[in-house]
Amino acid sequence: MTKVNVIVTPKGSILDPHGSAAKKALCGRGYPVDEIRVGKFISVTVPEEDSAKAKALVDELCRVLLVNQLMEDYRLEVEE
Amino acid sequence: MTKVNVIVTPKGSILDPHGSAAKKALCGRGYPVDEIRVGKFISVTVPEEDSAKAKALVDELCRVLLVNQLMEDYRLEVEE
Repeated sequence: MTKVNVIVTPKGSILDPHGSAAKKALCGRGYPVDEIRVGKFISVTVPEEDSAKAKALVDELCRVLLVNQLMEDYRLEVEE
Repeated sequence: MTKVNVIVTPKGSILDPHGSAAKKALCGRGYPVDEIRVGKFISVTVPEEDSAKAKALVDELCRVLLVNQLMEDYRLEVEE
């Protein structure tokens, strides 16, 4: 079993209402915040011992379902 | 300015309907997946040059607003 973490971030040109709302709330309370962007952190455990194969499989899962590539970027990190 | 990334994950004992739905959809298409857990990846940019101070500030922001510590765990990574 290998756990691969997928870090999904909104593309720079895409509005991020979740992040804007968090920034506004924190600035309203007096905290100094320049920018907040909210993405997803997805941990995928697959029944594959070879980390390169596990990464390739999770990359396919991202393209098939987990990531909307029109609006989001992603990167993969194999957890040792 | 320092960017601090916050990785927010659902606590192990908490149901994760988003992850369960993704797992079910992928297994239904024939992909071998053991578990999917979906959390958040929050990038916070603060006007602070000292990375230890930036991390302490973002830790406070997590406790004040960004993280629900009843249901979620979090960890911080300063982006160099």
